[in-house]
Amino acid sequence: MKASELAEWLDGDVVGDPGVQAAQPKPIEHAGPGDVTFLSNKKFESLLGSLTAGIVLVSRKIALPERSKVGAFIRVADPYVAFARTVGRLQPPALNFDPGIHPTAVIARSAQIADDVSIGPLVFVGERTQIAKGTRIGPLSSIGPDVVIGEDTLLHANTTVYHGCKIGNRVILHSGCVIGADGFGFAPRKDGSWEKIPQIGFVIIEDDVEIGAISTVDRGMMAATRIRRGCKLDDHVHVGHNCDIGEHSVLAAQVGISGSVTVGEHCLLGGQVGVSGHLQIAPRTTAMGRAAVLGSVIEPGQMLFGYPARPRMEALKREATLTRLISPKGELARMQQELAALRAELDALRKDRGGS
Amino acid sequence: MKASELAEWLDGDVVGDPGVQAAQPKPIEHAGPGDVTFLSNKKFESLLGSLTAGIVLVSRKIALPERSKVGAFIRVADPYVAFARTVGRLQPPALNFDPGIHPTAVIARSAQIADDVSIGPLVFVGERTQIAKGTRIGPLSSIGPDVVIGEDTLLHANTTVYHGCKIGNRVILHSGCVIGADGFGFAPRKDGSWEKIPQIGFVIIEDDVEIGAISTVDRGMMAATRIRRGCKLDDHVHVGHNCDIGEHSVLAAQVGISGSVTVGEHCLLGGQVGVSGHLQIAPRTTAMGRAAVLGSVIEPGQMLFGYPARPRMEALKREATLTRLISPKGELARMQQELAALRAELDALRKDRGGS
Amino acid sequence: MKASELAEWLDGDVVGDPGVQAAQPKPIEHAGPGDVTFLSNKKFESLLGSLTAGIVLVSRKIALPERSKVGAFIRVADPYVAFARTVGRLQPPALNFDPGIHPTAVIARSAQIADDVSIGPLVFVGERTQIAKGTRIGPLSSIGPDVVIGEDTLLHANTTVYHGCKIGNRVILHSGCVIGADGFGFAPRKDGSWEKIPQIGFVIIEDDVEIGAISTVDRGMMAATRIRRGCKLDDHVHVGHNCDIGEHSVLAAQVGISGSVTVGEHCLLGGQVGVSGHLQIAPRTTAMGRAAVLGSVIEPGQMLFGYPARPRMEALKREATLTRLISPKGELARMQQELAALRAELDALRKDRGGS
Repeated sequence: MKASELAEWLDGDVVGDPGVQAAQPKPIEHAGPGDVTFLSNKKFESLLGSLTAGIVLVSRKIALPERSKVGAFIRVADPYVAFARTVGRLQPPALNFDPGIHPTAVIARSAQIADDVSIGPLVFVGERTQIAKGTRIGPLSSIGPDVVIGEDTLLHANTTVYHGCKIGNRVILHSGCVIGADGFGFAPRKDGSWEKIPQIGFVIIEDDVEIGAISTVDRGMMAATRIRRGCKLDDHVHVGHNCDIGEHSVLAAQVGISGSVTVGEHCLLGGQVGVSGHLQIAPRTTAMGRAAVLGSVIEPGQMLFGYPARPRMEALKREATLTRLISPKGELARMQQELAALRAELDALRKDRGGS
Repeated sequence: MKASELAEWLDGDVVGDPGVQAAQPKPIEHAGPGDVTFLSNKKFESLLGSLTAGIVLVSRKIALPERSKVGAFIRVADPYVAFARTVGRLQPPALNFDPGIHPTAVIARSAQIADDVSIGPLVFVGERTQIAKGTRIGPLSSIGPDVVIGEDTLLHANTTVYHGCKIGNRVILHSGCVIGADGFGFAPRKDGSWEKIPQIGFVIIEDDVEIGAISTVDRGMMAATRIRRGCKLDDHVHVGHNCDIGEHSVLAAQVGISGSVTVGEHCLLGGQVGVSGHLQIAPRTTAMGRAAVLGSVIEPGQMLFGYPARPRMEALKREATLTRLISPKGELARMQQELAALRAELDALRKDRGGS
Repeated sequence: MKASELAEWLDGDVVGDPGVQAAQPKPIEHAGPGDVTFLSNKKFESLLGSLTAGIVLVSRKIALPERSKVGAFIRVADPYVAFARTVGRLQPPALNFDPGIHPTAVIARSAQIADDVSIGPLVFVGERTQIAKGTRIGPLSSIGPDVVIGEDTLLHANTTVYHGCKIGNRVILHSGCVIGADGFGFAPRKDGSWEKIPQIGFVIIEDDVEIGAISTVDRGMMAATRIRRGCKLDDHVHVGHNCDIGEHSVLAAQVGISGSVTVGEHCLLGGQVGVSGHLQIAPRTTAMGRAAVLGSVIEPGQMLFGYPARPRMEALKREATLTRLISPKGELARMQQELAALRAELDALRKDRGGS
């Protein structure tokens, strides 16, 4: 693709040769002639002079070098987003979904499948399930009865959707994820055994959500568990029953959200974060990796760290105070020395006085 | 269902109109006429006067209001358990298992399948495997050879059971769970590489166990890994090889139990709890969410918290002492002030004395 | 198998009756006549006199009892490794893979399957995928297009391999694991929504790797995520995109490695360990279970503990100092007593003096 074409498509401006061609997206350290790459981190600006890439996407704010071996720079508003789009255009993933319904798929008679849906080999689709146009279902997936799936959605191989769940448009579900398994609800019997609380709710996955491999969103007990528009969930994420995850929130790998939690919009939960049941997490909360959120977060926009999770600055200060206190030559040691010195001096003084 | 019928079935007593009908189970905040709900939490008693539900299940201990818009109250021993049963009766889950063996299922010739077993589309069942009456196997599940599955057991879609495992009666396995994968056993070779220890044991899942989506119970090295009667495991739970999980114990989501651990009966392990290998956990132990149990727990009935896990009161006291100590105007600051004051006074005293 | 045969095969020496037979591998506490077991732990040496096993594998360094009911001891260099080999020989796992391609498998026309490959029922293999000789694919697995799988590799039932991934020789993948799902990459848009960064890389699983049930290795963003030769991953492990896991490293259950992490060779990461993104972990690092590695580890061979992870001795010392400090009759209490005593004495002294 020519630099001039790419710039037009990205709404950017060429600095250099508009006719230079680049076909292969590459990370900046590997990009040579014929490759396209990007520079978004200020600290890499010093590299600009030594780059040999065909095309480099850069911020409008950056100072370009006088001389350069780069074929062309393209100035854009956000080089990372522009690069993402470029990659998607130059190298669309080779998923190989054939059109139509594979003859080995088992589709219930009452299912309603739009014309241009692709359903892979060995897929099961249950009774009354509706799948809208442009949607693709990978091999060996199981879609239960009474499910509704929107348009242009992509279910990779080996995904499972339980009965009655609703999945929006342009959703991506990765392999192994399970949508709509029973929430974890049991009532204790007198004899110490457990009575299962039937989970008669369902799951709503709204538009533009992506859910990573082997993640679970459990069905609500009586109503919906809801993953709102634009959320991105990584692999091995667990969302318990009755949760409501706000728009555009991000849950990194191995995050676990207990039941009946409300997470506000634009939250970021780092890897292995856990959230206790029945909490409210305010919008724009960031929980750093491994944080254990044991209480509701009321004030929006906080950054949390630790177990139990506290505001990051408080947690860091606490940690620093503690280190200052108990490190080998820290305050504790000094206080003990001072106490001993005071004791000795006071005793001497008194003895001295007593002796006088 | 009429209040009188429901009361009889639940072994409860009607207060109000025995003829009132309710068809839809609802949470208390959404229940109106025609709905059935329950009240078990004392702190919601103040709501009793304002409820409009058709039927409300309540404890025998509760004081009912003089006047009420509720159609009928039903007094029962345990309203939560009674409600669970009611939900299961009014709204059985719409799983749609067809009777018989689906023609696309692949059943080994020597497998023994009872007459009224339901085996879904695209299921694999291995040689010599036995499946008892009333059991249902969801689509796309794989049951290895030499497996024994009891009566009235439910395997949801996409579950995997390895060769030689034994699964009891009335067990529920959710989608994506894997029973009987190899335990994690490797012996170090001199050159730093690893020799696989063959895992020739198996797994026993006893009666009335439920295992959540995408959970793993690994096969024993030489004998069984055992999940005893009535245990409930949530999603993403891992039980390592040679473990023995006691009756009616509950493992919440993302719990990880290392190999050769014995967990007593009636234990409760909260979300993301981890247990180190070769430990003994006493009966009725509660490990709160995220606790890391690094040593055996000898005394039964304790509640544990933290990393490393300690008895909860000890952990909370420790945390509180620490906070009192290092908070900005805490004891540490006060001690340091007092030390400085003592130093100044002592110096003054000595100087004064020296000057006298 | 006769003791003499076994000893020859293990390169060991018989002490006792070379003709004694043993057929069943057993743990030491259950081994009787006809069984073979091993003793590797010094602290069990006292048991030697009371054993009745048919054959016991022991270290060359151990002192054998004068009298014994054991049929034969076999002295070997490493009894645990020798026992592992013995188990594999006496009781090879009953996996029952039939030769050839099952008629219900769906194999793309351009796939290249070596002659003696075993492909189970209801398997999908995509276009251009190559599977080398001796490899076995369990039921209900999905192998995407453009995948390359080496020789003598074993994929258990229900595994998923995305397009373009490369899997070596003698690799074992357990059920439910997902190789090559998209890495977790999104760029923030101005409006707070997320732009997906296409993940056009792939995964390389080198020779002799074993990956546990329900583990994920995400594909690189532009290049490979690499699991190097001889690595062993347990169940529920997550390896993010662009990671490089060094040879013979071991990742226990529920470990999570964020994106772009380099783990050196011969590392041991305990259960539930987490590693933040973009870190370097030096060779031979041991992170104990639940450790949260939040910074790069430069010095090789360290043992880490805690959240945040610190060198183990430092972490234990810190913990011990803290306990000494804040326990009920600890240093804090003593310092406060001493401060109060000093204060009282000083006041008395001054008063005394003032009164003189």
